Amino acid sequence: MEEWLPSLKTDTPQEGYELAIKLARKGVALTQPDAEVRKKLRSIYAENADSLTLASQVIAIHYQTVAAANDYWK
Amino acid sequence: MEEWLPSLKTDTPQEGYELAIKLARKGVALTQPDAEVRKKLRSIYAENADSLTLASQVIAIHYQTVAAANDYWK
Amino acid sequence: MEEWLPSLKTDTPQEGYELAIKLARKGVALTQPDAEVRKKLRSIYAENADSLTLASQVIAIHYQTVAAANDYWK
Amino acid sequence: MEEWLPSLKTDTPQEGYELAIKLARKGVALTQPDAEVRKKLRSIYAENADSLTLASQVIAIHYQTVAAANDYWK
Amino acid sequence: MEEWLPSLKTDTPQEGYELAIKLARKGVALTQPDAEVRKKLRSIYAENADSLTLASQVIAIHYQTVAAANDYWK
Amino acid sequence: MEEWLPSLKTDTPQEGYELAIKLARKGVALTQPDAEVRKKLRSIYAENADSLTLASQVIAIHYQTVAAANDYWK
Repeated sequence: MEEWLPSLKTDTPQEGYELAIKLARKGVALTQPDAEVRKKLRSIYAENADSLTLASQVIAIHYQTVAAANDYWK
Repeated sequence: MEEWLPSLKTDTPQEGYELAIKLARKGVALTQPDAEVRKKLRSIYAENADSLTLASQVIAIHYQTVAAANDYWK
Repeated sequence: MEEWLPSLKTDTPQEGYELAIKLARKGVALTQPDAEVRKKLRSIYAENADSLTLASQVIAIHYQTVAAANDYWK
Repeated sequence: MEEWLPSLKTDTPQEGYELAIKLARKGVALTQPDAEVRKKLRSIYAENADSLTLASQVIAIHYQTVAAANDYWK
Repeated sequence: MEEWLPSLKTDTPQEGYELAIKLARKGVALTQPDAEVRKKLRSIYAENADSLTLASQVIAIHYQTVAAANDYWK
Repeated sequence: MEEWLPSLKTDTPQEGYELAIKLARKGVALTQPDAEVRKKLRSIYAENADSLTLASQVIAIHYQTVAAANDYWK
């Protein structure tokens, strides 16, 4: 597998948030490797409020990890 | 991307809660960038009890992160 | 906004639990500010087992935060 | 309100688990105070696999809190 | 109640995982004490993808607790 | 049972993520041991956005554990 996660360190809280999004999406991509299928699914769930909230929740869980790894950018 | 998260530090627990809400909503906005669609969806889920609870849950997860980053405002 | 969360400190574990409930409800209230709508929704989800469990879950997440902030009332 | 949660300390991991159940149920009871309604709902969700798993999840979240409060009974 | 949880300590990460499964199932068993009903429900949810993922999630939450209790088997 | 989890240590954050996926799938496999059934279910949920997000969530929870076990690969 290609390298996609060299480190959990980021320079800022905002870059950490972007990393959390990447971690959340990777969990989906590794379960559904077909990019075309994912694109089709995204167009559906992006119109559904609960699906969006659920996606936001996974980002939130990963953000806890990234923030801890960066000592909360103290 | 514009800067929207310069720090996880806040002066008070209540401001930390507001930051948690911001973090939760950003997770939705970055998945569904169209503000019009989000507005439409919000008018739907704001009338659904479980959708509101789910949104409250994402805030709760982010609030754990923000509270830890502020050492619980001790 | 009025001040509603001056501190995460409470005297007892039970008062901490009550604060966790407040935090959970605030997440709903800030998304659906209309108290009449919330009242109507509450009468519905209070009769639904999964809705109640979901609400209890959000309280549980906030209680983790409040308990940590109080060093578990050790 | 009557006192129902004097402490998060328990003598054993198993008593801690029982406390986690109590915390989970209290979250439901404080949202739906009518014991008759809760009894009726319990008879329904106790026959539904996902409802039971969801209830088990809330217990799991509270058990994290109780275990931390007891320093994992080390 | 019989003793079923004498300790959160295990010798290995894998035994810790088995303990997490036990903790997850106990949460169900204490809510639905009838083993026959649980057996029937298991045959249903074992054929449903989301039910299995939800069950796996509860295990994941308990595994966090067990791993912390064992200092991650460092 | 065969040994499948000798350690929570990994060399890199990315290998840790792969371990988190393994932990998430094991939770499903131990509940539904029939590989044929799991294969059938996977072909269904891999086409459903919310199922994929839910699977990604379980990975996220396990990744918190693995990251903590590796001191966030600091």
